[in-house]
Amino acid sequence: MEAKKVILSEKEIPRQWYNIQADMPTPMQPPLHPATGKPVGPDDLAPIFPMNLIEQEVSTERWIDIPGEVLEKLLIWRPTPLHRAYNLEKFLKTPARIYYKNESVSPAGSHKPNTAIAQAYYNKVAGIKRLTTETGAGQWGCALSLACCLFGLELKVYMVKISYEQKPYRQLMMKTWGANCVASPSRETDVGRNVLSQDPDCPGSLGIAISEAIEDAVTSGHTKYSLGSVLNHVMLHQSIIGLEAQKQMEMLGEYPDVVIGCVGGGSNFAGLSFPFVRDKIYGKDVEIVAVEPVACPTMTKGPFAYDFGDTAAKTPLLPMFTLGHSFIPKSIHAGGLRYHGMSPLISQLVLDNLIQPRAYNQLQTYGAGITFARTESLICAPETNHAIAAVIEEAEKAREEGRSKVILFNLSGHGLLDLTGYDAYLKGELSDYSLSEEEMKESLKVLDSLPQPMLK
Amino acid sequence: MEAKKVILSEKEIPRQWYNIQADMPTPMQPPLHPATGKPVGPDDLAPIFPMNLIEQEVSTERWIDIPGEVLEKLLIWRPTPLHRAYNLEKFLKTPARIYYKNESVSPAGSHKPNTAIAQAYYNKVAGIKRLTTETGAGQWGCALSLACCLFGLELKVYMVKISYEQKPYRQLMMKTWGANCVASPSRETDVGRNVLSQDPDCPGSLGIAISEAIEDAVTSGHTKYSLGSVLNHVMLHQSIIGLEAQKQMEMLGEYPDVVIGCVGGGSNFAGLSFPFVRDKIYGKDVEIVAVEPVACPTMTKGPFAYDFGDTAAKTPLLPMFTLGHSFIPKSIHAGGLRYHGMSPLISQLVLDNLIQPRAYNQLQTYGAGITFARTESLICAPETNHAIAAVIEEAEKAREEGRSKVILFNLSGHGLLDLTGYDAYLKGELSDYSLSEEEMKESLKVLDSLPQPMLK
Repeated sequence: MEAKKVILSEKEIPRQWYNIQADMPTPMQPPLHPATGKPVGPDDLAPIFPMNLIEQEVSTERWIDIPGEVLEKLLIWRPTPLHRAYNLEKFLKTPARIYYKNESVSPAGSHKPNTAIAQAYYNKVAGIKRLTTETGAGQWGCALSLACCLFGLELKVYMVKISYEQKPYRQLMMKTWGANCVASPSRETDVGRNVLSQDPDCPGSLGIAISEAIEDAVTSGHTKYSLGSVLNHVMLHQSIIGLEAQKQMEMLGEYPDVVIGCVGGGSNFAGLSFPFVRDKIYGKDVEIVAVEPVACPTMTKGPFAYDFGDTAAKTPLLPMFTLGHSFIPKSIHAGGLRYHGMSPLISQLVLDNLIQPRAYNQLQTYGAGITFARTESLICAPETNHAIAAVIEEAEKAREEGRSKVILFNLSGHGLLDLTGYDAYLKGELSDYSLSEEEMKESLKVLDSLPQPMLK
Repeated sequence: MEAKKVILSEKEIPRQWYNIQADMPTPMQPPLHPATGKPVGPDDLAPIFPMNLIEQEVSTERWIDIPGEVLEKLLIWRPTPLHRAYNLEKFLKTPARIYYKNESVSPAGSHKPNTAIAQAYYNKVAGIKRLTTETGAGQWGCALSLACCLFGLELKVYMVKISYEQKPYRQLMMKTWGANCVASPSRETDVGRNVLSQDPDCPGSLGIAISEAIEDAVTSGHTKYSLGSVLNHVMLHQSIIGLEAQKQMEMLGEYPDVVIGCVGGGSNFAGLSFPFVRDKIYGKDVEIVAVEPVACPTMTKGPFAYDFGDTAAKTPLLPMFTLGHSFIPKSIHAGGLRYHGMSPLISQLVLDNLIQPRAYNQLQTYGAGITFARTESLICAPETNHAIAAVIEEAEKAREEGRSKVILFNLSGHGLLDLTGYDAYLKGELSDYSLSEEEMKESLKVLDSLPQPMLK
């Protein structure tokens, strides 16, 4: 019987994170202060993040030690298995060999706890007693709830109201782990009260929730704010995925021809791919594919520009692909991919042609998800289905070319709490959405008033 | 860093199931035909089960080979990890060492696919094209949907209507794997139409759903019926859990002082414990604890008697602990433990003092589940929380006695689709239920009219 999966022993868990800033051919552009247009320094970030995480954010050290207490918590579910998708290969009649890294086995059901655990730890050692965050669909809120529970920190989660009501299971998970989760806009911040006074029935948005969480963090004692994607230190913490996958592929005597992940803010994709991007920088022949939704085509359609990380324009300006910070994508089921911007690290690597972005339509991704569930058993998150759509296309191309290609992708999360999307798909009630040139022009107007030194 | 978990390689997966019928000190009483009171033969079961499974049902061979095609599917997620619950130990300040076998890692989220895969396989090789089954809360329906999908069988699931409506995610999982799931009572069987003509708003019951599934199986071509617990061949297929756990404990140089599982029909408990019961039969000093709800105290309060396996009185009479086949337990959240009877194998082993039954109240089990989630991270099924309540009691006893005891339990499933129970508990809205002497007397009356050779 051929091996279905490769599992590392606990002793083989990586002891250091990989920081791609050490190897990037083009150095990163600094974040800018929106008022002055000048680079932002560590002190500008200190009101919302602890200094140890700010240091990681700007570090160019290649390897950063994973603290023992963080490793101990990661070992609850890590190392995660690397599976070979034999049944999918057979179904597609492809000569390609398809592997996936299974990040859905964490207690929260996704890769998000990899950074949640690290962030909770660094806040704790910095003397912080309480964190705030926002969450859309709820994956990040669940992961940080788990992490805060394990390190004895209080947590307040501002969850977009429409999701709070439509996805009750997610907020119940957070509460089971002891977090305080409220629907946003809430009556507990100035921002929230202000929104509610104008529109008592406001369904909320990620932008409002971020603003509430930041206001809470800067106005409450011993409290900081935590973000689950986009930033450099988040990508750093996720690199454990790719470092494990490299060991596992090596044990099989394999090296991928193509590495695939879905991207919203970019963290699961960066986690798997950055160690392979490093190989590519030093000459290895490997294709790195980042998959986004056609409904939110940040990298495939948007410009590379300075923009705010949040809708409410509270963050520094980040150098990234963006659709404009006030862009609200159509309500596709892959909530985690509905982000107007992109990790600055990933953005720079796309500019340098080290990462190839692609966009897929919602219907194709659900079709891919159903094929995967019915061959490989796992029901994946709608976000993950974007990666699977690209995998299937690559495998079919390999069949047509008669080429025995090695494909590796990140199974970033399970879809057990996202089944309504599958239901709608099976009933034929789902649609595709794309962005017209005019809509995009409109949404990019917000960039005009911001300092844009790179675009000159 | 101490090891958090032990993971077997794929090569170490057991190649044979263990059949406890080979080692039981008291031979099993045969099932009886309700009309004649005579033992039921294989031919009586042939309309609903294929002959290869009937042979397993009555086999007394100690070891039965697991077919290669079954192993291949089990390897999708097996061997499952054995974890050490360090954080729970620390929290309880106990000298006990607590281990758990994590069956929640299957694609369906519980131990149920261990037998679903085997049953689908044996039906397929017997030329069956289609299966029917019933499901209450939905765990079994999901597991069999997955198995039928993997082996290319059609499946019709009759799901108790009230659960179909209250637990929409479970039926969506079944549909994602391609099964046809309908609310029971349905208009698709005589039984269902009959019930609906008398009560169009009937919320359904497990008894009605079983009757619909059996009627469908015996009246449709190439169709058999499949059951997820209670029967001997189900316990056989689940023995892989305990066989793996024995290897894993051995690798740690440990042997349990006490083995704990929750029991509804008995399959997850039997799966973990039977290989250890065998050791006990041959002189090993190990306590085997079966945990049931106070609201459905089959073994702690019921008599050992012949009774129907289903509410609708369609099955042969089984020798088992029972509360009477028309007993409807209060609606506790651990739906999988709301069964009036008990696996005949477990029942006989309880009679022989090899297994100790215990009952716990709902509130205590949710308290235990919350403690576990907040120390060990995993949110368990409400059924599993019954085992955890017993584990915590044993660990606290060990602390009081200053004894370094080894505890092993089965984490039979996760609770990600059962979070409403946690919510009710955290809000203080849950209650305990127990059975009065009078209620029990009433529910046991149905036994009087049945042949009861053993009770003479």
